[in-house]
Amino acid sequence: MLLNTRYDQNNYPIIVEKGAIEQLEKALSHYQHVFILIDQHVAQQWPFLKNKWNHAVLIEIPAGEQVKHLNYYETFMNQILEYHPTRNTCLVAIGGGATGDFVGFMAATLLRGVDFIQVPTTLLAHDSSVGGKVGINAPKGKNLIGAFHRPKTVLYDLDFLQTLPKTEILSGYAEVYKHALLTNHKAVTQLETQYPTAEHLYTLQNIEVFIVSGIETKLNIVLADEKEHGQRKFLNLGHTFGHAIESQHQLAHGHAVMIGILFQYIVANLVLNARFQPHTFYQYLKDLQYPLTVIEAFDFDQLYTRMLSDKKNDATGIQMVLLQQIGQPKVMHVSQYILKEAFQQLLQLHNEVK
Amino acid sequence: MLLNTRYDQNNYPIIVEKGAIEQLEKALSHYQHVFILIDQHVAQQWPFLKNKWNHAVLIEIPAGEQVKHLNYYETFMNQILEYHPTRNTCLVAIGGGATGDFVGFMAATLLRGVDFIQVPTTLLAHDSSVGGKVGINAPKGKNLIGAFHRPKTVLYDLDFLQTLPKTEILSGYAEVYKHALLTNHKAVTQLETQYPTAEHLYTLQNIEVFIVSGIETKLNIVLADEKEHGQRKFLNLGHTFGHAIESQHQLAHGHAVMIGILFQYIVANLVLNARFQPHTFYQYLKDLQYPLTVIEAFDFDQLYTRMLSDKKNDATGIQMVLLQQIGQPKVMHVSQYILKEAFQQLLQLHNEVK
Repeated sequence: MLLNTRYDQNNYPIIVEKGAIEQLEKALSHYQHVFILIDQHVAQQWPFLKNKWNHAVLIEIPAGEQVKHLNYYETFMNQILEYHPTRNTCLVAIGGGATGDFVGFMAATLLRGVDFIQVPTTLLAHDSSVGGKVGINAPKGKNLIGAFHRPKTVLYDLDFLQTLPKTEILSGYAEVYKHALLTNHKAVTQLETQYPTAEHLYTLQNIEVFIVSGIETKLNIVLADEKEHGQRKFLNLGHTFGHAIESQHQLAHGHAVMIGILFQYIVANLVLNARFQPHTFYQYLKDLQYPLTVIEAFDFDQLYTRMLSDKKNDATGIQMVLLQQIGQPKVMHVSQYILKEAFQQLLQLHNEVK
Repeated sequence: MLLNTRYDQNNYPIIVEKGAIEQLEKALSHYQHVFILIDQHVAQQWPFLKNKWNHAVLIEIPAGEQVKHLNYYETFMNQILEYHPTRNTCLVAIGGGATGDFVGFMAATLLRGVDFIQVPTTLLAHDSSVGGKVGINAPKGKNLIGAFHRPKTVLYDLDFLQTLPKTEILSGYAEVYKHALLTNHKAVTQLETQYPTAEHLYTLQNIEVFIVSGIETKLNIVLADEKEHGQRKFLNLGHTFGHAIESQHQLAHGHAVMIGILFQYIVANLVLNARFQPHTFYQYLKDLQYPLTVIEAFDFDQLYTRMLSDKKNDATGIQMVLLQQIGQPKVMHVSQYILKEAFQQLLQLHNEVK
């Protein structure tokens, strides 16, 4: 399946299919220097990748989120600079969303910008294949250092999904689910029907359909934001609370986002008179085997401080994306009072249903 | 004097006059967070700056080029992130070209990009007020890590030039002279007539005229490059050899560029049958009291290796900007053989004239 971005310029293809990685060699043929940065776990699981490209330098990088650190940035930038690259250079990121963020930020800032190609290997990474956001983490929070830098091509090879650990499937599913929530009721129902329980989800049956529609949803929102109506913030659904618990409790991104979505339902009920059923959603998360006992360790003051660091806040304070209904997101300031009330309700819900 | 950039979009004013810094407060009034990063030497020489802006956070940073290092980048990014800035943030750079490069790179990558305002305090910094290039250095060379990020405003306050040390005047004059070389004979003659010796140059009489025409020249070249004719490389005149000796021998930027221009005359005579008089130019550099004894320490192999790291090289090897005549630059591949021959002639010239 071939998708194309629809920006005013600098568009790129997103190819979603089994064996997509075979197209990499051709895409790289006109570059003078090629550096392939590959997530260590992916390199271990797919050893054929190591000797696949002759004229490229292959660099294994630490797996997952941990690589998004200035120390690694310095190490790998300097390693690449040893080869005296010119601007006619391409960096390739083979790995999950974190790998793409990290390598994309390197590409954005190497010699003031070189090309990069993304080869996502996780379900979660479908999310970062659109939008051009790249970056690394800082002690104060995730992605606080970064840039906007679009890839030249995204080769989304579905074969990689075969070896995903269950925790990665759950993590990626959160963004798939979020994109459905931002679309409409039908999209959500389709997902819940296809994947009512963990056993169904782990088969990843028909997942390419949902990946493609997730990418389409995100693309539409990102394009609308190019016209500066601010819709891009909608993609932050579940992320205000999600990022806070993710960094405070070292959760997998999507696990945190799912709890963030749950929290958002409670807030939306409080401030928008929405009629979501947090209990039902909590039960769905349990059926999918998301780890939820961590909720018992949450501390409001700690998490509130972290929420204050969100880039998307403005002068009035914490901004959250809230659903009025499914498919109808809204960005709103939410007071500390409401956040605390919603937090108490979350703890109570957990104690009742767990 | 007010100049305006003439890009397709994102234009900004460049204000060149005494007391221009008084306009900073107004320019900052609509930002939620303001961080003023000021070169330590400038802060010492102009103590009134320290308590001038009430709602801004003032941060003193190491003086000059040394600050353009990833360690300092990490330190000051984290210091700023402690304040939980939102995207409605402006960074202000008060200092020379290096300060602007460093703070500009911070602004380009803080929260994926915030605004910045440049307040250049040196003669050299007139050069970096146009072009949007920001960046830091790496062990392998200068500005190898960076971005393109235009300031919102440049406030070039000529009062700062009063306290410039002589070595800074010489360093900045190199770029003024380079811009004249890229313009025409008349521009060069005007400069040499105004400043025939070091004593004349140190008065900086009429310097604003030359600053403004230098900015105009650079602006025209940068704009032409937006249409992708590659003219922007012309600004690299004197910089291929210049950057190599600058980093190898820790020279002030402009001192290195002036010797780079001299070297370029020799190469142009060799490969373009140009008829420059390197002896005459060497004498002018002596009259201006540029330090030239460092030439005796030059080693071709060391410098050749450094020239190979230049970002502007391509697959064919080292690219140099050469003048066919004054005002007629050309980008050319130059072979190792020619570079070595020119290098010998440079040493010989130095031994004859010194």
